[in-house]
Amino acid sequence: MSAPLLSPDELEAALRAIGAERYHNLHPFHRALHDGRLNRAQVQAWALNRYYYQASIPAKDATLLARLPTAELRREWRRRLVDHDGDAPGTGGVARWLKLTDGLGLDRAYVESLEGLLPATRFAVDAYVAFVRDRSILEAIASSLTELFSPTIISERVAGMLRHYDFITPETLAYFKPRLTQAPRDSDFALGYVKEHARTPEQQQAVLDALKFKCGVLWAMLDELEYAYVNPGRIPPGAFRPDAA
Amino acid sequence: MSAPLLSPDELEAALRAIGAERYHNLHPFHRALHDGRLNRAQVQAWALNRYYYQASIPAKDATLLARLPTAELRREWRRRLVDHDGDAPGTGGVARWLKLTDGLGLDRAYVESLEGLLPATRFAVDAYVAFVRDRSILEAIASSLTELFSPTIISERVAGMLRHYDFITPETLAYFKPRLTQAPRDSDFALGYVKEHARTPEQQQAVLDALKFKCGVLWAMLDELEYAYVNPGRIPPGAFRPDAA
Repeated sequence: MSAPLLSPDELEAALRAIGAERYHNLHPFHRALHDGRLNRAQVQAWALNRYYYQASIPAKDATLLARLPTAELRREWRRRLVDHDGDAPGTGGVARWLKLTDGLGLDRAYVESLEGLLPATRFAVDAYVAFVRDRSILEAIASSLTELFSPTIISERVAGMLRHYDFITPETLAYFKPRLTQAPRDSDFALGYVKEHARTPEQQQAVLDALKFKCGVLWAMLDELEYAYVNPGRIPPGAFRPDAA
Repeated sequence: MSAPLLSPDELEAALRAIGAERYHNLHPFHRALHDGRLNRAQVQAWALNRYYYQASIPAKDATLLARLPTAELRREWRRRLVDHDGDAPGTGGVARWLKLTDGLGLDRAYVESLEGLLPATRFAVDAYVAFVRDRSILEAIASSLTELFSPTIISERVAGMLRHYDFITPETLAYFKPRLTQAPRDSDFALGYVKEHARTPEQQQAVLDALKFKCGVLWAMLDELEYAYVNPGRIPPGAFRPDAA
C-alpha cells in the first residue's frame, strides 16, 4: 500500500481532517467542562492534572530547541519558551495556569508537588516529551500542530466557563487570552515547516501520524479525568481526592 | 519529615501493604473479568492491550540487564528474558500470550501491529520501560515487585475465566501456568535484593515509590480499558473496535 505524494495543500487538508476527528474539543469531558456540567471539584481535578501538561511544555520545547540545527529555527522555537516561562517571576503561561489553580482554591505547593496527579496524566505527558526527544525534527514539529485547533477550543472554554461557573473569573482564566494570539503564530510556523519539509509519502505519513499521536495524548488525559472524577468516578489510589485536599 | 530506617522485614511489610492497597487485583475491571461479567469483545480488548505489556517486558528486562554490574545479577535477570522470549520460535511467555489472543479470535498480525492499541496503554507501558532505563538499579528492581502479588491474581483469573467464559479453554490460558512458578522465583530474588540494598531511609522510600509507580502503571491500564470498553464505554479515535475487527 504505497501512499501517493500529497501537495502541500493536500497535506494541510489531511492534517485538518485529523483534527476534525481527533482533537479533544470533541471529548465528552470537554463538552461537560464548557457546558457547566461539572462541579468545582471536577474542575479542580482538570486544572490540577492539566498543570502537569502546562509545566512540561517548556521542557518539551527546550528538548526540541536543543536539537534544532539553525539559529533561525532556534529563535522561532525560543519564543515558545518565553511564552511559557516568562521573563520574570510570576509571568508566562505556567505562572498564569497557577492563577487558575489558585482561583479554584487549590494549594499552590500541592499543585506544584504533583502529588495528586493521576498516573495516566504523567504517562501521557511524559510520552509527549519523549516523542519530541526521540523522533525526527519533522515529527517533533508536527506534533505541535494541535495548536491549529486550539483557538476554537479556547474561545469556547473561556466563554462557557465564565457563563456557567460562579467560581471562575476573567482573572483566573488569564492563561487563555495570550494563547489566542500565540497559538496561531506558532501553528502557522509549524504548518509552514511541515508543508515545506515533508517531501516524500513516508515523511508525510510520519507527519500525519505525529499529529494523531499528539491528539491521542490530549484525548487520553481526558479519558482518565472523566473515568476518575465523573463517569464512573473511580479515583485511582493516591490521586487527588477533592474531599481530602 | 525524616522517615525512620526500617528493618528489612519492616520494609517487606511496607511493600506488601502497598500491594494490599494498590495492586490491580482490586480494580473493578479485573473483578468483572474474573467474575464473568465481560463479554467476548471486552475480553478481546483486554488481551489485545495487555499484549503490548507482555511484548514490552523483554525490552524492559533487557534494558535493566544492560545496566547490571555483575555476572551474577545478569544471569539472574537473563532468566526473565528466557521466560518471556523462549528458546525457539513459538515458545516463551509472549508466544503464549498470542495463543490467548488467537483463542479469542483476534487476528495475530493485527495484534502484533499494535494498530488498535489504546494510546493510554502505550503511554503506561512505555513509562515502565523508561523508568527501568532512567532510575537507579535499586528502583528498577523494586518496580518488578508487583510479582509478589501476581500468583493470587493468576489463580483467581484462570479459575474464574474457565468457569465463566465458554470461549476460554485451558490451552488459551497457557500463558498463566508457568507464571505461577516463575513469578515467585523472580519476586523472591527481587525482594531479597531490595531488602539487602535499601540501606538508608531515602533508598527505602525510593523502593516503596517504585512499587507504587508500578502499581500505577497496571492500574491506569485497567482504568482506560474500563473507560473505553465497559463504563461508560467510549472508545477513543483509532483504537480497537470489536465490531470492525
